Amino acid sequence: MDRYDLSLIGFGGVNRALAELIVQRGDDLAVELGFTLRVVAITDLRAGSLVDIDGIDLVPLLSTEPGALSFAGLAGGSADPRNEWVIRHVPADIVVEATYTNPTDGEPALSHVRWALESGKHVCTTNKGPVALAGRALKALAVDHGVSFEFEGSVLSGTPVLRTAQRLLGGLTITGVQGIMNGTSNYILGRLEDGVDLPRAIAEAQALGYAESDPTADIEGHDVQLKVIILANEVLGARLRREDVPCEGISAITPQEVRDAASKGLHWKLVGSATRQEDGSVEARVAPVAVPAHHPLAGISGPLNAVSLHTDLLGTITVSGPGAGRIETAYALLSDIIAIHQRGAADTTTPARFVRQEPNCV
Amino acid sequence: MDRYDLSLIGFGGVNRALAELIVQRGDDLAVELGFTLRVVAITDLRAGSLVDIDGIDLVPLLSTEPGALSFAGLAGGSADPRNEWVIRHVPADIVVEATYTNPTDGEPALSHVRWALESGKHVCTTNKGPVALAGRALKALAVDHGVSFEFEGSVLSGTPVLRTAQRLLGGLTITGVQGIMNGTSNYILGRLEDGVDLPRAIAEAQALGYAESDPTADIEGHDVQLKVIILANEVLGARLRREDVPCEGISAITPQEVRDAASKGLHWKLVGSATRQEDGSVEARVAPVAVPAHHPLAGISGPLNAVSLHTDLLGTITVSGPGAGRIETAYALLSDIIAIHQRGAADTTTPARFVRQEPNCV
Repeated sequence: MDRYDLSLIGFGGVNRALAELIVQRGDDLAVELGFTLRVVAITDLRAGSLVDIDGIDLVPLLSTEPGALSFAGLAGGSADPRNEWVIRHVPADIVVEATYTNPTDGEPALSHVRWALESGKHVCTTNKGPVALAGRALKALAVDHGVSFEFEGSVLSGTPVLRTAQRLLGGLTITGVQGIMNGTSNYILGRLEDGVDLPRAIAEAQALGYAESDPTADIEGHDVQLKVIILANEVLGARLRREDVPCEGISAITPQEVRDAASKGLHWKLVGSATRQEDGSVEARVAPVAVPAHHPLAGISGPLNAVSLHTDLLGTITVSGPGAGRIETAYALLSDIIAIHQRGAADTTTPARFVRQEPNCV
Repeated sequence: MDRYDLSLIGFGGVNRALAELIVQRGDDLAVELGFTLRVVAITDLRAGSLVDIDGIDLVPLLSTEPGALSFAGLAGGSADPRNEWVIRHVPADIVVEATYTNPTDGEPALSHVRWALESGKHVCTTNKGPVALAGRALKALAVDHGVSFEFEGSVLSGTPVLRTAQRLLGGLTITGVQGIMNGTSNYILGRLEDGVDLPRAIAEAQALGYAESDPTADIEGHDVQLKVIILANEVLGARLRREDVPCEGISAITPQEVRDAASKGLHWKLVGSATRQEDGSVEARVAPVAVPAHHPLAGISGPLNAVSLHTDLLGTITVSGPGAGRIETAYALLSDIIAIHQRGAADTTTPARFVRQEPNCV
């Protein structure tokens, strides 16, 4: 049975949910998936850092209220997150990065990912920033160090959009992607359709936990912009940067416009799209679009998200599911760990074939 | 570069489309996927059979009108389909089964699949019958003979529903499935909503090529019933037979009922569903359901199909796409061949690990 030692970078909702999954389901996962998981380090801006290379007992940590958690008094603990030291020097197999990201430079998540890959550790992250702003460089770094860089959760939390495109559609050509990739703005547009005004719709979204206290990134499309860049670069092989993707949010849409459209059977959606052009380039944008009732994205309402993949042989394939949520995003990390495990198993074929060709070895 | 020799059983629209893909894209596929495909036998009820173990030249066959194709005069050709002989004795790696299936006993497709597996050949099929009626026995036969049995196209043509459930959702529990899995009935329900009556809607569906000349299996839900059995057995591990799945079609729904529902924001859909019960058993059925506008299946209109997978960690994941079409279904066969190739590559790990543990072998 393989075992993976994890360093959890950030111990907010998502990595706590992953720790809960490990505690509650570790034995079942071992039976199903063929590996066990052990946490050897945790860092957190507020709680500090905790290291035990024989495995941290997660149960007492999870029974402490998040706000009250402090690692300072514990054996192997410190009030200092010591992120760089932990990532570089604690002998983990996988660094699980779930801190936060500045949409301009991707920090601090970007440095966390880079330190981990440089020190030969696999990385999975739920952060958009490092993938959208430096995905190509980070993947090259991973290849150089013989490790994996996985980030399914950076687009639609655990909904498997990247892996559908990368693993299940071999042999055909994906010509474009189009998606509803922000639950807050989608919820708000639905409420405008119901006759609610924008400030109240935003307040509702905040009360339901969909929107941040500063909802700008959701409302103005910046969150979707980073996801479109990830999809364009990963699925269509583009090399887009933020300045290549025009971005228009939903703040200029009036409730009256939304209701007028609905009366004609049209539903306003904040759509991120990327399309391969005839010259081979990829054009991407984020903008509100009034889609007809029979459009594959028209039925995606409330906090639900969806991405359509336009293909040459199958027409349009759409995957819909949650785009956020702590457990849903923790599941994305688990799916990344499964991918790392599977790649590890597959990679052993190369030496195998070599060895089997040596006649004296049998 | 691996090469797979194929026997194509049935040379109607689907296997012809696969042959076209091989001719038009074979070189690209080799670069992308790492294998080449060669057709060594074709059988067809009308055209007879054609065998060339050095590879059949597909180009002249594809330039002949389907109705005019006859293998009788060709070298290696016969007016007799010789299905059993070809399947058992022509040395193909993969038997690609795309004939037809009787919903009562799965024949003749079921025998084709069994003969192929018994003679140690991988099988991919687009036929529901063998999978729904004898899936467990055929998978056991495949294991006994060390070969693969693949059937993605038996549910939603090339839309990857089975592989999403089986490959991308490890570590969570799928508690139920629910889908719109028949494009003809879905198109007809949409037209009833538009005010068209049932006979005219059926005639339209036939004119568009969605419905068979005898549309009973589409209208009465028998087509969906077999797909629900496949999903329940493959995704939920059930052992359902046809008599376990109550089946109600759309013929009793009046246009008035459909329009009344639409005026309340409800859309009638022919839904196939299977749900795990508290006692662990799986209950499945096919029935028309009036779903609200915000239901994940409400926006699935016209010939589009979709399957929702209800899960414990991610809520509901829905995959939508085409459910029929000759190229779309041929793509399902290609995706099956890719799966066979990938499994072959992965299987070489086992002897590898054994050999690598022998110290004198290094």
